[in-house]
Formats: sequence, structure tokens, C-alpha cells
Amino acid sequence: MGVETGLQLRTLIKRSGELELSLVDVPTPEPGPDEVVVRIEAAPINPSDLGLLVGAADLSTMQASGTKDRPVITAKVPEAGMRAMAARVDESMPIGNEGAGVVVKTGSSDAAKALMGRTVAAIGGAMYSQYRCLKVSECLPLPAGTTPAEGASCFVNPLTSLGMTETMRREGHTALVHTAAASNLGQMLNKICLKDGIALVNIVRSAAQAEILRGLGAKYVVDSTSPTFMDDLIAALVETGATIAFDAIGGGKLAGQILNAMEAAINKSGKHPYSRYGSNVHKQVYIYGGLDTRPTEITRGFGMTWSVGGWLLFPFLMKIGKADTERLRQRVVDELKTTFASHYTKVVSLTEALDPANLAAYAKRATGEKFLIDPNKDK
Amino acid sequence: MGVETGLQLRTLIKRSGELELSLVDVPTPEPGPDEVVVRIEAAPINPSDLGLLVGAADLSTMQASGTKDRPVITAKVPEAGMRAMAARVDESMPIGNEGAGVVVKTGSSDAAKALMGRTVAAIGGAMYSQYRCLKVSECLPLPAGTTPAEGASCFVNPLTSLGMTETMRREGHTALVHTAAASNLGQMLNKICLKDGIALVNIVRSAAQAEILRGLGAKYVVDSTSPTFMDDLIAALVETGATIAFDAIGGGKLAGQILNAMEAAINKSGKHPYSRYGSNVHKQVYIYGGLDTRPTEITRGFGMTWSVGGWLLFPFLMKIGKADTERLRQRVVDELKTTFASHYTKVVSLTEALDPANLAAYAKRATGEKFLIDPNKDK
Repeated sequence: MGVETGLQLRTLIKRSGELELSLVDVPTPEPGPDEVVVRIEAAPINPSDLGLLVGAADLSTMQASGTKDRPVITAKVPEAGMRAMAARVDESMPIGNEGAGVVVKTGSSDAAKALMGRTVAAIGGAMYSQYRCLKVSECLPLPAGTTPAEGASCFVNPLTSLGMTETMRREGHTALVHTAAASNLGQMLNKICLKDGIALVNIVRSAAQAEILRGLGAKYVVDSTSPTFMDDLIAALVETGATIAFDAIGGGKLAGQILNAMEAAINKSGKHPYSRYGSNVHKQVYIYGGLDTRPTEITRGFGMTWSVGGWLLFPFLMKIGKADTERLRQRVVDELKTTFASHYTKVVSLTEALDPANLAAYAKRATGEKFLIDPNKDK
Repeated sequence: MGVETGLQLRTLIKRSGELELSLVDVPTPEPGPDEVVVRIEAAPINPSDLGLLVGAADLSTMQASGTKDRPVITAKVPEAGMRAMAARVDESMPIGNEGAGVVVKTGSSDAAKALMGRTVAAIGGAMYSQYRCLKVSECLPLPAGTTPAEGASCFVNPLTSLGMTETMRREGHTALVHTAAASNLGQMLNKICLKDGIALVNIVRSAAQAEILRGLGAKYVVDSTSPTFMDDLIAALVETGATIAFDAIGGGKLAGQILNAMEAAINKSGKHPYSRYGSNVHKQVYIYGGLDTRPTEITRGFGMTWSVGGWLLFPFLMKIGKADTERLRQRVVDELKTTFASHYTKVVSLTEALDPANLAAYAKRATGEKFLIDPNKDK
């Protein structure tokens, strides 16, 4: 098979309440003057991709069918989950936020031709495809000596972690809290904060994860599974003065515990008089992920000056504008092999991505476990 | 007893984990040149007063002691509740946000003397007192023919309900949702919205409450105890386009249900393309009360563009500034006997306020039940 057609991973949720993952052959579009065709060789499976890939499906009901070359996975979507899926029902969707590869065909413009043979990264969607036709302006040419695997995660995690420290500053906070902090993203955020001199309170879910972060030089690491968790967290918040948190967990009690610990730390600081409505210091938790899909359970013991809300990279970039986005993007390219280096536990092909054992592994979203898809691995 | 001393209601939470409510004799301060002494004759028990009055105490453990003239109420504060109480422990605090009464003594300035004999309202705190010394600038002189009972609730409910429609406009929404909507405040908000042509979705917790609001001319009333609640709410949100809610309940699932219903209504409108992150329309719930003290349980099925946070009158007034605050205040005075009229189920003296049966009744915060304290009723 040449560049004319390529395999593409598709996700479909049927009105009947069934998720179907499959591979389809799609013709590669002929590039327009300002477009290029990229042979995708590396695309990470980010938590944000998983949200689209499996939606509200219950993977314990997963069934494999199809053939070796064209595997099909099906799973049931519980009725309660279908409401949130309404807008995507019966629409077969390509997937894969970001990735990198080599330009194998170009349009007629000089800018397009200049990219021939270059390794480029992009955040164009549909990256779990063998070939992607992209605008020149969508391509981020990587420095010589950078492999597609090294450049695959140029956007989501690097810009998200930079977005967190930017948001912290813009909203008037001076230190921050991060949950699921041993994740790829969390490790990146640690490197940024160490480099930029920002106090970061890392919340992890095991002693082993705490060790990973301490090994990276993290100063404040608290383990939510420890019996002294709340006391440890309050102590770290007293020391750092953090009043903003970014939470990848979403479900369960953690977001509320953070707000309560912030308020306790503010009261301990003795800087604020008692008010029946709690301190007047604004306490913010942004939920940017959903590692725990259970409801968010907030025990309100922190007064009235608080907010919990969603945080998403693209609206954030829209808000800060083009110049500031470009500044963040340039920093990522400059520090791609240091601050923003990503690590993967396994590289899979498109067919391997639909192997039930692999799917079960990456859908668990376990910390430290990160898959990279190489759509051209089988070729 | 003359004006020299007066009874004052006090609330105290002891380090031992005990709430104590009592009456104490306090000397009335001699008014300074720009101050007056007000004989308080009417002070409402608002939900916000109850938060300070009983704190985290468990009223099922309530004990009455003391004498007929100096009753004392005690109750246990569960250990889990003591953390939030830390800042007020062992401090005997006066109470009563707002009230009205008659000026019985004045300072030497012309402005103070001009108030002699006038009925004034104030939001000065410690209003559950027989006498309050207030600055002239704290007093809102009421129009002739207004009784203290009519002016007692000039501030909290009127400015809070006006603050909701102001917040709605300032944050770019065009219609709003209100919970516990049959409350005194909710009825006020209905009158404001009807007058100002704002679509208001009223969420109530019984068919009887729905009737109260329909009787006031409310167009959108949905009952959260109805089996068709979610469908009814979504239908009302499709019609009104409301994307901001003010929630007095706080605990349980309601805040999350509102966000989910908003997202469903936005999707039904067909105006926004599908995104894996949900619609890009900002959905806001402000929690301004805690009628349900259980944790807030949010089932996140509404994408990433959302926020739940605390809303409080005074920070809001600080934010909008003096001129806009004055504009709202003037509207309240102008419409005190119409839009902003309050209704009370019972008028009690200070000793009656500490009668266990009364305390149990008003602490229930039942919709439609509202107590007014007349500290000089026994005299």
C-alpha cells in the first residue's frame, strides 16, 4: 500500500448503546498548494484521547471480533452514560490529538516544498492514521536530530503544564497544587517549577509515586493514601501558600479536600480575621482530567470564597492570545529533550492498539504507563 | 431597664466541642458625635445568621438550661465539624446581620440629631440586641409610614436577589436558574425578574412550593422531586437559554444536575458542534447557601466549560463598587413595600428565640418559614 490510502482508527458510539472501535482504509487527500502529507510515526495516547476513544463505555464488557488485520472492539455504553454521548451518537470519528512524522509529499508552494523529508509535529486531530494531510501552518518542524517519537508529545502535555503556571500567575496565585502528580504531565510540571522557582505541592496516590517525584527533586510531595494526608497537605500549604490546584482526578473527595486544606492553612497563617463566611482568600481548583470518573464530592467546610471548574488547554490558549501562545510553543521546542521529554512504556501499531490486552492496559490510565502509537509500525 | 443596658444574644463554640447560646446584659455605648442609639424592634433570622448562630452543632443534642429570663441552650459540635469552627473557638460572638428600629438617642452632630425618632434599617451585625449604637452612615432612614418589621430585611435578601440578576448580566448570561425558589428570597427574585423581563427557571422541592410561585406569576417552575425533573429542567433551559444558576441548597446532586441539564439543553439547541470536551458554552453554578449541609456531589457529564463556586453578597458589592451598590440600595427603598416586601411566620423575643421549640423550627430552614426577632418585644 502506498501513500494513496492509509489505515485510520475510528471510534463510534451507536444509538443502541454500543461502542465500536475499528480500522478503516481512507484515501489520503491530495495536498493543496499550502499542504503536506505526513507519514505519522508517533502519536501518544493521552488521557484526553481516551475520553474520545472509549467515551462512557464499560470496558469490562469488551468483545474482540474482526480479523487480525482489521480487528474490531465492541463494548456496552451504560444507559446513564448515553446522555453525555448524545452529540456524537452514530458518528464514526477519527482520533488522536497530536503526533509527529515525516513529510512524504507536498503541495506546490515553496513553504510546503521546504518541508519535504522534514520531521514535523502537529496537533491536528485524527493522528491515529497512517497519513495525514496538514496545512503548512499546522506543522511544527522539529530541530534536526529529533525523532518523531521525541516530538510526538510536543503540544498537549508541555502546553498544559506551562498553561498551569501561566494561569497561576495570571489569577494572582504564587504557588500551586497538582494531583496525579507522578504522571508524565506531573513530572514535566515539576521540571518547569524547579526551573522557574515556583513552589509546587505534588499530591500522589502511592509511596512509589512519591519516590519518583522526590527523585526528580520535588520538595513537597504528599501521599493521599497516607493516614496523615490532610495534615501533610495542610503543612505543605502553610509553607507554600498555594491557593490554586490543578486536578487530573476529578472524581471522589480530593478536590474538596484540597479546598478544605487550603482554608485550614489560610486560618493557620493567622493573617486573616475570622468571618462566618470563611476566609476572603480565593481558593481555586481546576479539574482538567477525569482519572476518577465517579462524581466529584465536595464537603464544603471552606467558606464561600472558592471555585471549582473545568480547565482546558485550547480555551486557555485562545484567552491568552497568539503572541503568548507562540512564546510558550517556542519554549517547548527549545527544551524538548530536557524539560519536555516524554517517556513511553510501549509502542504499538494501529492493530496492536485494538488488542484487548493493550486496550485494557492503556485505558486504565495508570500513572507511569503511557502508550505511543506508531501507525506505520506494521509496514 | 433603660437605654443604658440591653440584652444581647451570644453564640459561643467552646474548644470542648460545645455550642452555647445565651443572653447577656451589655452596656449601651454612649453615641459619639456622628452616632445614634437604635432600639432594635425587628431583625430577621436569615440562613446566613443561622450559619453563625449554630455553626456545625448537632441540634439533635440540644439541651435547655438557665432561667426563664436568661435561657441557655447547649448542643454538641461533632468532631468533624470542629475544624471549620477553629477560627471562632472560645469567642463569644454577638449575632444578627440586619434589622430595623427607632433612634432613641443621638450624638451631637446635626446629622445624628436629624435621625432622632426616625425608623432606620441597618446591616451592622449584632442586631439581636435591644440597643445598637450605629454610625449615621450605617443607618438607612426609612420612608415615613414604614414600620421596623417592614424595614427589617432591607439588605440581605433584596441586595442578594438584585445581585443575582446583576451577576447574570455582568458575566454574559441572559437568563437564570434559582433553587429553593419558593423561599422569601426566591419570591423576591421572581418579582424582580417579572418586572425586568428576565427569564427565570425556578427549581422547587414540592408541588406546594411550585403552586406558590405559579401564584406569583412564575412561568418556569420545575419540581426536583418529580420523576420527570431532569426532562422538565432541560425543557425549561432550552426555552430560556439559562446558563447560570444560583443555588441555595449546596449539598447533594442538584448543582451537578443543573450543569448536566444546561449542557443537554445546549446540545439540543443544535447551535454548537460536537466536541469531545463538551460544548464551549460556559456553564456556571454559584452556591450561595447551604440548606443541604451534605457534600456537593457533581456527576461530571457536561464537558470542561463549567464552574461551581461560592457567591457572597459583600464581596460582590465590593466588586461592583460604591455607585452601583447605591443604585441597588435605592431601588430597594423605592420598592420596599412591593418587590422587596418580606413575610414572617412568627415574631419572637430574645428569650423566645432561645426556646428549644422555636430554635428547632427556625433552624430547619424550611421554605416559607421565617422568624423575626423583636428584641424589645418583652418590654
